[in-house]
Amino acid sequence: MIKFPKPTVEQFFRTYAISDFQVNSDETRLIFSSNLNGKINLWAMDLPDNFPYLFAYKDEATSFISFDPEKRFVLAGYDKDGDENHQIYAVPYEGGLPQPLVTGGAEEKYFFSHLSEDGSRLYYETSEGNPSFLNVYVRDLQTNEDTLIHQGKDAPTELSAVSEDEKAFVFSQALANTYVKSFVKTGEEFHHLVPDPDQVHVAAAPVFTDNQTIYFLTDFESDYRYLAKFDIKDKRFTKVLEIEKESISVLKWNKKNNVFYLTTEKGVEDLLYRFSPDNEELERLTAPTAILEKLVVTKAGNLYVLGRSATVPFNIYKSTNAKDWEQLTNNNVLGVSEEDMVDPDVVIYTSFDGMEMEALLFKAKPEYDNGYTIFWPHGGPQAAERKQFRSMFQCFLNRGYTIFAPNFRGSTGYGSEFVKLVERDWGEGPRLDNVAGIEWLFENGITDRNKLFLVGGSYGGYMALLLHGRHPEYFKAVIDIFGPSDLFTFVDSVPPHWKPLMDRWVGDPVRDKERFIKDSPVTYLDTMRKPMLVIQGAKDPRVVKAESDQIVAKLKEKGREVEYIVLEDEGHGFSKKENEIKVYTSMLEFMEKYQD
Amino acid sequence: MIKFPKPTVEQFFRTYAISDFQVNSDETRLIFSSNLNGKINLWAMDLPDNFPYLFAYKDEATSFISFDPEKRFVLAGYDKDGDENHQIYAVPYEGGLPQPLVTGGAEEKYFFSHLSEDGSRLYYETSEGNPSFLNVYVRDLQTNEDTLIHQGKDAPTELSAVSEDEKAFVFSQALANTYVKSFVKTGEEFHHLVPDPDQVHVAAAPVFTDNQTIYFLTDFESDYRYLAKFDIKDKRFTKVLEIEKESISVLKWNKKNNVFYLTTEKGVEDLLYRFSPDNEELERLTAPTAILEKLVVTKAGNLYVLGRSATVPFNIYKSTNAKDWEQLTNNNVLGVSEEDMVDPDVVIYTSFDGMEMEALLFKAKPEYDNGYTIFWPHGGPQAAERKQFRSMFQCFLNRGYTIFAPNFRGSTGYGSEFVKLVERDWGEGPRLDNVAGIEWLFENGITDRNKLFLVGGSYGGYMALLLHGRHPEYFKAVIDIFGPSDLFTFVDSVPPHWKPLMDRWVGDPVRDKERFIKDSPVTYLDTMRKPMLVIQGAKDPRVVKAESDQIVAKLKEKGREVEYIVLEDEGHGFSKKENEIKVYTSMLEFMEKYQD
Repeated sequence: MIKFPKPTVEQFFRTYAISDFQVNSDETRLIFSSNLNGKINLWAMDLPDNFPYLFAYKDEATSFISFDPEKRFVLAGYDKDGDENHQIYAVPYEGGLPQPLVTGGAEEKYFFSHLSEDGSRLYYETSEGNPSFLNVYVRDLQTNEDTLIHQGKDAPTELSAVSEDEKAFVFSQALANTYVKSFVKTGEEFHHLVPDPDQVHVAAAPVFTDNQTIYFLTDFESDYRYLAKFDIKDKRFTKVLEIEKESISVLKWNKKNNVFYLTTEKGVEDLLYRFSPDNEELERLTAPTAILEKLVVTKAGNLYVLGRSATVPFNIYKSTNAKDWEQLTNNNVLGVSEEDMVDPDVVIYTSFDGMEMEALLFKAKPEYDNGYTIFWPHGGPQAAERKQFRSMFQCFLNRGYTIFAPNFRGSTGYGSEFVKLVERDWGEGPRLDNVAGIEWLFENGITDRNKLFLVGGSYGGYMALLLHGRHPEYFKAVIDIFGPSDLFTFVDSVPPHWKPLMDRWVGDPVRDKERFIKDSPVTYLDTMRKPMLVIQGAKDPRVVKAESDQIVAKLKEKGREVEYIVLEDEGHGFSKKENEIKVYTSMLEFMEKYQD
Repeated sequence: MIKFPKPTVEQFFRTYAISDFQVNSDETRLIFSSNLNGKINLWAMDLPDNFPYLFAYKDEATSFISFDPEKRFVLAGYDKDGDENHQIYAVPYEGGLPQPLVTGGAEEKYFFSHLSEDGSRLYYETSEGNPSFLNVYVRDLQTNEDTLIHQGKDAPTELSAVSEDEKAFVFSQALANTYVKSFVKTGEEFHHLVPDPDQVHVAAAPVFTDNQTIYFLTDFESDYRYLAKFDIKDKRFTKVLEIEKESISVLKWNKKNNVFYLTTEKGVEDLLYRFSPDNEELERLTAPTAILEKLVVTKAGNLYVLGRSATVPFNIYKSTNAKDWEQLTNNNVLGVSEEDMVDPDVVIYTSFDGMEMEALLFKAKPEYDNGYTIFWPHGGPQAAERKQFRSMFQCFLNRGYTIFAPNFRGSTGYGSEFVKLVERDWGEGPRLDNVAGIEWLFENGITDRNKLFLVGGSYGGYMALLLHGRHPEYFKAVIDIFGPSDLFTFVDSVPPHWKPLMDRWVGDPVRDKERFIKDSPVTYLDTMRKPMLVIQGAKDPRVVKAESDQIVAKLKEKGREVEYIVLEDEGHGFSKKENEIKVYTSMLEFMEKYQD
């Protein structure tokens, strides 16, 4: 009978991303952001029918989607080619071309915050007039008048919740990924949500359950984020619900049944819960996927989840009973079943100082195994490698590579203290955790000493450069995807509203000069002797192109083998499928070249 | 509140085509061919879920889709950039990349004919070894062995039905669009399906209801196609069902209930019927759309239709009771509702010789009306302009153009005699019908004498050129989309298997020399004084690029205003959205330039 070849590389890239979604209040329309037709656009389905139709055409990623409750329009945020200068657009309720609504100069940012219950007042933050700390405005959509309601100071400030009567506002100041203060403002009065805001903590995801009561998530005096309550009238902070060794990351409230839906981060997975504040009952729910990217709870109490697992790409699921899930989308890998892909093992190894590290080990299936391993330090660094589908991983696995991705110190999902360990220590502790991971691979017979590749993006790209410079003996070849190469220029080149965070996160170039030199990959150019591939988006606002330019130029000067791919129309990530295919194909070709 | 502009031109091109579909036997999977993601690929839905997923990636149009009943593979036909050299590919049942199955030299054609009930014998026709008349083979998919079962002669021959026991075969010889002989072959014996095959007629769409009985459609001794029966044992031809002034165009049989489903062509619309051969009961059914492009009747007796109406693009519908239709796809115009579009009036006017012509008149809505009319002679010519959604029409209407599309003599849907009137008369009768249509527009105050544009494609492009050459006074400007400009070179340049048809259809360049000169647009270059836009696909195998090249070159020589767009990767039609947008945008810009 007809014989078919094994799935090819290309097939893995014929999945698409679903990056966001929203459901209208009566659940008759679901809009999602996807590159289904090649570039990112908004698509809709008129539920219960789930055949998608193009809803808004712009060929750009969206930063949010919000329905007018009165069904007159839909709001969405767009930037330009990933430059992260988000602006707010309106789309007719029946779909069409997005029209600028709250926009300004190409360099300015306008972040959506909140739309009033009647859809006529739009709250937003903007860099206009306050590039580092942002200002918060409300626009009356009837009169088109903007009113300043808060001026950010000390740190980038966002409006994170508005009470139903629109008289109380919670603002959040992000001093670092691990230090976010939130305070409620009613008139001229304001109160922090935690008793001592000067202690480093995060207070986030506030929800008004009535005009006087705010529920929110915090790790104030704790290693994990828990559910807390702040009573505006008597200024009282109460710890409500803590879950051991899990960080509550998402908080949604259903008014009708007065229940909360929570998702928690637990290492490489997310868990889903329902919590009733009345009887303090907590119930673990079955989640449709290992990773829950977004949770929407509707007025009627139905749940919608955008999620993915290691072998399942982004899909949207719906549940009416918080138990059984209906898959609304059908995103899969062209002609490749889940069984053809690799679900990772979760392994634990001990680092240089005795601390335990969790890692994902994706073992190439024996029939594909080419004997090589890719070592993947994740980006962030305050993020984690989790059980999330990556075309890149599954494609490389199919080509026979084993992949090892450690959650070194600084990773999220293991408590706040662990996350903070990367702050002002980008290059020492985390690097040694990676080195310990490499040695663990060798010791456990998973990888031959001369069969290791090193690949990383963003902070992972930085780590790849640094590991290359300091431990070149480990690697056959190295791939850096938009990684900072020099901490001095990196802290200097980030967007203005990031700057206040840089001191706690990376450090101060004057005070920490010695450490910056020690932890900058450019310091080790002499020892970066292995072949390298460097990939950079020309419009990247986070790690600017100069970061990659300089390392490539310097290595070329020294006569090293360096390939350099610049994507003209991309930012910090790949939004266009053709670019994705180009980059990952180049990566495979590059690695194939350096196999024995 | 937020104000939105009127829909823009671009929105009309953000629909997609669904050009074919097929359902597997237990109706758990539906595969359709669509440019949903920009280029044409196969998409699937796993029914009853109707969220589509990419099923086969090739970025090319398909000529057929066929499911292996044993669920091991799916067959599909692909050509290259519309060159119509179709070859047969296999795709794994779960999807993937199409693999060549029955293929050969790039210039050869392999047409799918039939797949045996057990999915192991594939019947096909090929140009290999018999370029003008084609040979018919069966391939044993177990052994990969090909067996010649019929050698085409006299005319391009296809295998159009196979009995269940695979012992009787119906072959059809296409001598012209209006002359198709069919005969059944059992062993060495063969019989024509109609009593006198030498009379010009069409015998088509044969269906075996058992190994001895063939139902088929024919216009033998009639002006309209009717349902007939041929009994193999006693060689008896019987007329079964005739519908007044309607041509039966599609015949599907449901074995389980022993009923036929028929679609008929009635001028600008299709009608749907159920017919029971037992009690000879004919029932008119509600169709989901005005035009039925494809009808599939499943084993269980459910109906699937691919259809469109003037204001509804291609969609697929399902009915379990042949009455209520569920829309499985959701293809619409981005942000434009049906009410925003124009449903045409059906008008009748009298031509030069008293014959009545039906035409579609799309009147621009008063709020958009720009006062100009586009006169559109359709392609074919043995086809018709019908109530079928065209992005082009609705977009031009939205820009304010009124559109008039006459079904001049030669058009289908008005009986076989009417269709034949264009044969060997490409340029006289049909041209005068068009002229009468133009005069009718003026007389009825629909169009000002100096506000008429002329646009046509394929035969319509030829007619546009001819009308321009012979009646330039009517038009402000003319657009020709791959129209033949010279009948001598045209009959000479078509693919070999078309040649046998050319004599009846167009004529013989030697015998009909005078008429060819009279009816060739190139004869009237001197009077083609109005601005022209010529559009041509470089790979067009029907109207080769030289046809457009020569007229453009000659007009330029004479210093006329001519714009020329050549699409490098297109054939006779536009398969790529970006090309479509480019062409229609250019057409609009061209016409805008010549408005007063």
